[in-house]
Amino acid sequence: MSTKLGFVGLSAGYSWAGKAHLPGLRLIEDSPYKITAIVNSTLEAAEASKKKNKLQDAQTFGSIQDLLSQGDVDTVVVSVKVPHHFEYVHAALEAGKDVVCEWPLGNGIQEAEELSNLAKSKNAKAGVVLQARKAPSIIKAKELVESGAIGEVVSTNFTGYTDKWSQYTDEHFPEYLNQRKNGANLLAIPVGHDLDALAFVLGEFEFLNGIVKTHFKETQVTHTDEHGKKTLTGKQTPKDTPDQVLVQGLLQSGTVASIRIEGLQSSELNKEKGFRWEIRGSKGEIVLTSKSLYSELEEVFIQIAKIDDNGNALPVEDLSVEYDPVAGNMKTYYQDYAEIKSSQYAQPQLNKFAGFTTFDDAVIRHRQLEAILRSSKSGRRETYI
Amino acid sequence: MSTKLGFVGLSAGYSWAGKAHLPGLRLIEDSPYKITAIVNSTLEAAEASKKKNKLQDAQTFGSIQDLLSQGDVDTVVVSVKVPHHFEYVHAALEAGKDVVCEWPLGNGIQEAEELSNLAKSKNAKAGVVLQARKAPSIIKAKELVESGAIGEVVSTNFTGYTDKWSQYTDEHFPEYLNQRKNGANLLAIPVGHDLDALAFVLGEFEFLNGIVKTHFKETQVTHTDEHGKKTLTGKQTPKDTPDQVLVQGLLQSGTVASIRIEGLQSSELNKEKGFRWEIRGSKGEIVLTSKSLYSELEEVFIQIAKIDDNGNALPVEDLSVEYDPVAGNMKTYYQDYAEIKSSQYAQPQLNKFAGFTTFDDAVIRHRQLEAILRSSKSGRRETYI
Repeated sequence: MSTKLGFVGLSAGYSWAGKAHLPGLRLIEDSPYKITAIVNSTLEAAEASKKKNKLQDAQTFGSIQDLLSQGDVDTVVVSVKVPHHFEYVHAALEAGKDVVCEWPLGNGIQEAEELSNLAKSKNAKAGVVLQARKAPSIIKAKELVESGAIGEVVSTNFTGYTDKWSQYTDEHFPEYLNQRKNGANLLAIPVGHDLDALAFVLGEFEFLNGIVKTHFKETQVTHTDEHGKKTLTGKQTPKDTPDQVLVQGLLQSGTVASIRIEGLQSSELNKEKGFRWEIRGSKGEIVLTSKSLYSELEEVFIQIAKIDDNGNALPVEDLSVEYDPVAGNMKTYYQDYAEIKSSQYAQPQLNKFAGFTTFDDAVIRHRQLEAILRSSKSGRRETYI
Repeated sequence: MSTKLGFVGLSAGYSWAGKAHLPGLRLIEDSPYKITAIVNSTLEAAEASKKKNKLQDAQTFGSIQDLLSQGDVDTVVVSVKVPHHFEYVHAALEAGKDVVCEWPLGNGIQEAEELSNLAKSKNAKAGVVLQARKAPSIIKAKELVESGAIGEVVSTNFTGYTDKWSQYTDEHFPEYLNQRKNGANLLAIPVGHDLDALAFVLGEFEFLNGIVKTHFKETQVTHTDEHGKKTLTGKQTPKDTPDQVLVQGLLQSGTVASIRIEGLQSSELNKEKGFRWEIRGSKGEIVLTSKSLYSELEEVFIQIAKIDDNGNALPVEDLSVEYDPVAGNMKTYYQDYAEIKSSQYAQPQLNKFAGFTTFDDAVIRHRQLEAILRSSKSGRRETYI
């Protein structure tokens, strides 16, 4: 029996659903999925999306209410701006649908908790897209760590760079991302994704200290020409979202962890450097790198270098495989979701589907982000589990 | 008039004084210094040192008391194991001598404070050797930062690696360094030096959080053959000194700072990597690197990459110059000390001789290390200024 998906946020123009979800679903052979409905802000927009995305069998709707009352769907995929997640997910759950929602689940922890509780009370199969857990190199890192390939894991260090949320804002960068009230900032989005990958591979924090700082309260809007050269447009845009996120703490496993992620215009010394993630053990080291801070946008590479029993450094092994970080990760995500759908678990047990992130997992990640913010204010170690 | 130096700790075999101080002094043209006395644990050892180090005019003594009562010296240089600093420095100050002491000044903050107070009461010209401030690349970094070459300094990140104080201990590594009671461990020595360089270039912390952890409580003793290959000797040596030091905080300047320094056997992925120190600003970035965690052992390289006013990355400039990190830094240190000696300032005003580290500076650095340890216990932000 097919899973009938209704998409909220798949548009005729650029949309994340169109860039990642749809191509991912289309990579699945003998797919158990069928896209049966599209909702956009207007019926015309939904029609345009249907045509553009070649979904001739899909119903089209101009509102979530129409979709839920008239649509032939059992699962609603929500891929819209974060401030609208709550409304759409809440409505879908209330209507008895299963839901797949983009990360972050809520605009803040309260929304996420309320949605998670509602999903549980409705026995819904509710997934959040934290697809770093689908990147082959990140899965490989987890396997290596768990197999003891690098011995005891002593320390981990994650350094991430992005030009976004920096002193410059590209004219095409959605301005609402610079406003904290919209819950779609450096901390909420990339730090959330990256910390989820870290938790997946190494486990959660026993405690953490955080520093979250907004250095640039106004950013210069830039235009980039066809050669990639920037010029200032002369406009400024206010920004109250953080550009500096520092976290250090101890993982439950005993590993010390240090994370620094910043929004700052890259110099040539940091070009093509999205993140560098070191996992250092008593018997060797794993290094994961990517050109993007977002493991859902660019490939993540993995290298391992072991140390023999006498303490001698052995050659570096590159374990990277080619894969499609955008559609490929989503393909695997939806394959796992199909398994969830056919399982008895609504919020599946973590030890069974550690790679699949439910609303419960999203709540843990939201709580971690809240703990970082709390610690940044209190100066104290905070916990979130 | 020559400054008459009496050396405590310059031996016939390997000694830091013989490796760094003596060659540094000998690089000074028209030197204002004369080494007039050597003290070792026995008179015979002092005689052997005199011969080996070609100091035919030096007096020799078998005890600090003999040096102080009979020696023709006005400045005592103390370069011995940390647990003996207090005794020798205290005696020299009491005898009215000026003193140059290796870092760390004391075995812990109490000793350092007592020595600093004594130096002040004696109006002594008391210097501590924190010679990272003499490395040309570190001086260059300070000049660049202060000239605004990289705009507002937004963040700094220091990542340091050493094989020492790790799960392995070379059979020639002095075992007392693995014992916390001796005050000569990863935190006290390299972290102290590195944090001093950071303070020199970027200023002190407004507050910091620290994590100091001893992961390896026992280390395997290794033998290294002539090809650099290690084998276990089968011996273990206990270790209660830290191998993980994490610090994050806010500098008084508003820059966020993240520091991680660890003692862990390097893999091929970290070979030749002593430290990487990023200083990131609104208009560009400075990166300092060295093959050693100790800027007093290996050259420190410096690169800068600026960002133009439109946010475009400009080419990397390598500003590294060739220099002798061991004797060269000590040469400059002693040249500055000569200036201190001829000045009216006993504990010179920092703004006049920011590059010269007095006992007062050493106390600040000791306090910072104490703050890191306090924070590691309390989980809270700590201050030290």
